[in-house]
Amino acid sequence: MNPSEIIQKKRDGHELSTHEIDSFIHGLQNGNVADYQASAWLMAIYFQGMSPAETAALTESMLNSGKRIDLSDIPGPKVDKHSTGGVGDKVSLILAPLAAACGLVVPMMAGRGLGHSGGTLDKLEAISGFRVNLSEAEYKRILKEIGCAIIGQSKDIVPADKKLYAIRDVTGTVECIPLIVGSILSKKLAEGTEGLILDVKVGNGAFMQTKTQARQLAQALIRVARKTGMNCRAVLTDMNQPLGYSAGNSLEVIESIELLQYGKCKRPDLSCTDLKEVTLHLCARMLETGGLVKNLTEGRKRAQEKLADGTAWKIFQEMVSAQGGDLKNILEPETLPLAPQKIEFRAPKRGFISKMETTGIGQLVLEMGGGRKKSSDTIDHGVGLLFHKKLGASVRPGDLVVTAYAKEDANSEELIASLSQKISISQTRKPLPKLIVDTIE
Amino acid sequence: MNPSEIIQKKRDGHELSTHEIDSFIHGLQNGNVADYQASAWLMAIYFQGMSPAETAALTESMLNSGKRIDLSDIPGPKVDKHSTGGVGDKVSLILAPLAAACGLVVPMMAGRGLGHSGGTLDKLEAISGFRVNLSEAEYKRILKEIGCAIIGQSKDIVPADKKLYAIRDVTGTVECIPLIVGSILSKKLAEGTEGLILDVKVGNGAFMQTKTQARQLAQALIRVARKTGMNCRAVLTDMNQPLGYSAGNSLEVIESIELLQYGKCKRPDLSCTDLKEVTLHLCARMLETGGLVKNLTEGRKRAQEKLADGTAWKIFQEMVSAQGGDLKNILEPETLPLAPQKIEFRAPKRGFISKMETTGIGQLVLEMGGGRKKSSDTIDHGVGLLFHKKLGASVRPGDLVVTAYAKEDANSEELIASLSQKISISQTRKPLPKLIVDTIE
Repeated sequence: MNPSEIIQKKRDGHELSTHEIDSFIHGLQNGNVADYQASAWLMAIYFQGMSPAETAALTESMLNSGKRIDLSDIPGPKVDKHSTGGVGDKVSLILAPLAAACGLVVPMMAGRGLGHSGGTLDKLEAISGFRVNLSEAEYKRILKEIGCAIIGQSKDIVPADKKLYAIRDVTGTVECIPLIVGSILSKKLAEGTEGLILDVKVGNGAFMQTKTQARQLAQALIRVARKTGMNCRAVLTDMNQPLGYSAGNSLEVIESIELLQYGKCKRPDLSCTDLKEVTLHLCARMLETGGLVKNLTEGRKRAQEKLADGTAWKIFQEMVSAQGGDLKNILEPETLPLAPQKIEFRAPKRGFISKMETTGIGQLVLEMGGGRKKSSDTIDHGVGLLFHKKLGASVRPGDLVVTAYAKEDANSEELIASLSQKISISQTRKPLPKLIVDTIE
Repeated sequence: MNPSEIIQKKRDGHELSTHEIDSFIHGLQNGNVADYQASAWLMAIYFQGMSPAETAALTESMLNSGKRIDLSDIPGPKVDKHSTGGVGDKVSLILAPLAAACGLVVPMMAGRGLGHSGGTLDKLEAISGFRVNLSEAEYKRILKEIGCAIIGQSKDIVPADKKLYAIRDVTGTVECIPLIVGSILSKKLAEGTEGLILDVKVGNGAFMQTKTQARQLAQALIRVARKTGMNCRAVLTDMNQPLGYSAGNSLEVIESIELLQYGKCKRPDLSCTDLKEVTLHLCARMLETGGLVKNLTEGRKRAQEKLADGTAWKIFQEMVSAQGGDLKNILEPETLPLAPQKIEFRAPKRGFISKMETTGIGQLVLEMGGGRKKSSDTIDHGVGLLFHKKLGASVRPGDLVVTAYAKEDANSEELIASLSQKISISQTRKPLPKLIVDTIE
């Protein structure tokens, strides 16, 4: 295997064999492929793409770089969900216990936030004591006893992805479908799931800004997932505004708890209808994929029941407890860390909320201290935004639009100016984006 | 300066500013840009290209990574020649002393062979004691006293090129015009020359196989050379067969000595007419560029005189002597190292030499031990090939076509089989390729 020849072959637009891809990924692990050869190869892939067969080979090679967890001794269908990332996307916190309440085993290996997009692990770590690093034995015990666990990737899960991602992150090769597919699916295969529902976000807060791009990614993911033996469907959901009423780690845990505990928001000036809708829809798809229901309608009905009767809420508490989280934070969410300074952004004029620059809003949360620019940054779980008005809402001058929870030294004028640039008010009400955009099977 | 953003900007096809290119090259030197970022950037340049302004900025940044030799205290116009590389291309050995004999100062910083293409330094090192690593003071003294010197690049000349080339060599980014231009011109600017004649080889033994590619490279080189203040012209010359009658280090020195000493070959069964023609043409162009003659005709006349009257031959001896070479090797060329086994390839049938696979012939010399696959390989100066017949020659069965000088353990049958595959004999005489293909001013 000559790495240079494999780079040139891809550079010239030829299809690489499974053996070539395998030896390149293997070489990256054992030092036969230098990092600078990997990055040149990744850039060549960026320009020339990869066929479904190549992408499947890449996925399998990445998977084989580490350990694959075997969940076959745990009874019940194992189905996970993966989101391509958005702002205010706290679906996993509700969905994992809800799907478990409906009878699925949900082995959820989640990620951390990077850039404008939040991470499930960071949200859970707002809960005091919550451990995302479990041993394989603990992980399997919790899955067996409770039905769901949300953990981080251990070192021995897809080490090739860690190496490749670290390179991609600083070499302009993140935005590349086959590389995204390989990264997502290798980890999902490693965690031991049999089925996977993909929540591909689309809109101005999503990685994929257009439906066409989102569909391409979804199709590539499904095609390759099936080649690797995973049962996979994708749902395209809207990300033209933050999902639910909050963005920021503690705030999102609070919103999730409310939805799990009451099935809705407690405060009348906030709404999490969209969050609930997306969660129920994804849960129904998961149940269908796991073979527990005949169709989507039945799945949705089961999910609604298990949310309403408190089973999901109970499982959430059990999961938090099993993963070392302080139940007090859950039962009294006001004990979660919250930033000290409340800053209000009020409507400057009458009209309708017509646009929310969602990526910009996510970046604002990041700037406030709630996210990471680089993976070594630490997070302030207490900062975040509450959205009192969402797309389509009518506002009068002075109406509260956003409450920001900011650090003591935050500049309130700057923050308000920044929000006013990101949230547009128009004279006429614009049509709302569809929440469930499409389903790709 | 964020290297990742500069990579992305180039990846997306935008023009980089001089400052961005400069800070990237500078960052590569001081460690702010990682090797794996450089290789991703190089691959992005491979796909997106570089404008003349970008290429000029790259050239200047590379130049500024090291030392620039100042030859302004040496009287006379300084003009150098650079060849893009071919098989049997020993022009520099004759041209440097010839141009010096005509009144130019020729500061020639040359390279080593890599792959199928030979290197001037390797040829000169067939001469016992010849030193290509001179101090700047020695280099300048020899230029002042003798008028020409042929040396290697010292460590402090364009260190950025050494780093970039080492990366390009193993990441599939060698064949990229702006990178080639930057590499060539930064070194030529650093050696202190004012004028430059480019010998862009074109044909099946050249880096650029078609006239279109060769013209593109020549135009890019001239455009950028002028932007950096260098007086530059390009001549496209044929490389559809080895130049002259030999390929291999000692054999090429012998051929060069014959041409310098007698103005032709001594043996009637060998011919170096094409080598002489290319050398005289390039010399005339150099004289014209240096302002020593009014036009090409006058230049050619002066070159012919200085070759015929022995001045060039005398200067060659002086240069060899000044650079530590053993004059005995020059005055009695049979003392140069020659491989012990002579293998003859004879015409298997009647006809005309219709094709010589020149890259393959260069690779054969390499395989025989006369070249390098990687830069750390050592060279056997004694191996090589003599071409008794060249393109268009008529042959009868049994006529001697090639004499190979091979190592003791070389397999003669394999070597003959290899030559018979690379040299085609056809029933009809095909038109000969034009030797001087084009001139780009």
